[in-house]
Amino acid sequence: MPIVTIQVTREGTQPGATAITPEQKARLIEGVSRVLLDVLAKPLDSTFVVIEEVDLKNWGWGGLPVEAYRKQRAAKTS
Amino acid sequence: MPIVTIQVTREGTQPGATAITPEQKARLIEGVSRVLLDVLAKPLDSTFVVIEEVDLKNWGWGGLPVEAYRKQRAAKTS
Amino acid sequence: MPIVTIQVTREGTQPGATAITPEQKARLIEGVSRVLLDVLAKPLDSTFVVIEEVDLKNWGWGGLPVEAYRKQRAAKTS
Amino acid sequence: MPIVTIQVTREGTQPGATAITPEQKARLIEGVSRVLLDVLAKPLDSTFVVIEEVDLKNWGWGGLPVEAYRKQRAAKTS
Amino acid sequence: MPIVTIQVTREGTQPGATAITPEQKARLIEGVSRVLLDVLAKPLDSTFVVIEEVDLKNWGWGGLPVEAYRKQRAAKTS
Amino acid sequence: MPIVTIQVTREGTQPGATAITPEQKARLIEGVSRVLLDVLAKPLDSTFVVIEEVDLKNWGWGGLPVEAYRKQRAAKTS
Repeated sequence: MPIVTIQVTREGTQPGATAITPEQKARLIEGVSRVLLDVLAKPLDSTFVVIEEVDLKNWGWGGLPVEAYRKQRAAKTS
Repeated sequence: MPIVTIQVTREGTQPGATAITPEQKARLIEGVSRVLLDVLAKPLDSTFVVIEEVDLKNWGWGGLPVEAYRKQRAAKTS
Repeated sequence: MPIVTIQVTREGTQPGATAITPEQKARLIEGVSRVLLDVLAKPLDSTFVVIEEVDLKNWGWGGLPVEAYRKQRAAKTS
Repeated sequence: MPIVTIQVTREGTQPGATAITPEQKARLIEGVSRVLLDVLAKPLDSTFVVIEEVDLKNWGWGGLPVEAYRKQRAAKTS
Repeated sequence: MPIVTIQVTREGTQPGATAITPEQKARLIEGVSRVLLDVLAKPLDSTFVVIEEVDLKNWGWGGLPVEAYRKQRAAKTS
Repeated sequence: MPIVTIQVTREGTQPGATAITPEQKARLIEGVSRVLLDVLAKPLDSTFVVIEEVDLKNWGWGGLPVEAYRKQRAAKTS
């Protein structure tokens, strides 16, 4: 009966991709459902997973929109 | 002052519909607000309702994206 | 497959009660599950309900903790 | 390590705007992150902010979709 | 930068236990963080996990508090 | 009508304190409500704030419970 909510930025992880692919979503769902099965013996059938994709402009980190924050960090370490 | 969040898959419930209709949303809002009024005497004016529609590919059940899970169940019971 | 989350302040609704009773929780669960059934034809078996009780000091309204806000409103209207 | 989630209706606050602007989002992120820093000494780098924009039809207040509720209130006070 | 929220009922999974153990929580955290790393290449350092334990009386399924629902299901299948 | 949810670990920020104080909660509520007023012109009266305090064992970062993660980071930088 667990509910797992995964919040990620809406962006691709491969060159040219602008979003998570359906295959990646399926793997996320399978992976976290299995963790609940392995650790707490929750049957797969009783776990709900919700993936929330959040626009980059709507995600903040370090007091900044995340793209600005990443640039700032890259500048610092280079 | 309650907050009720309703998460549902983004899909229609009638032939041809691909999403919940505005009328259905209005009925959901009215219905759950009334439950809070009836059970806890919370005035309608103090209840917020947020409906979150989740893409079918972003909803998991049984370790699978929900559409794959439904097919699996249909195959088992037929 | 819907998930309904109900957030309310942790306080009683009857003289002497300091929290929602188990009976009230059961009625909330039944009530909102029925709304999903009536409006979207979601079977009762596929709806999860989570009730989150929030300490009064952790709930804000009008820029104030809710108890202070209620006093302010009561003072205004009296 | 705080997570701040801001849920607002998807609508503009200025004539002609139909949504929050990227500049407003950046100011929201900066503002709430600073509150966590000022009040709880949480470093900016450890705070995540997620802004969720909710369609007007998906937001309920007073037992009604929010646009209908606003009209009702406007009619009462005029 | 993902956020993973795991909602489970507050109950033990072993004889005598009345709650998830700290070891199980650590395994949940490690497990879901690894899924994000494996599937989306999100560094462990950038993933937050929040485990929310929900009282059995506050979790509904099948229109009933979950304990009543489990009894009903057990009665049906026996 | 915004809803702001603040999730923080349940721990004190001052020597001897084991939790956020009511005064700090009041300042958080006031602070974030003001940000919504300043940036989006949302009246204080229409903003709800919910503070969720999360047990340290229930918060994960870096694939570890947060206390273990902090120790690991402290060891690395020393």
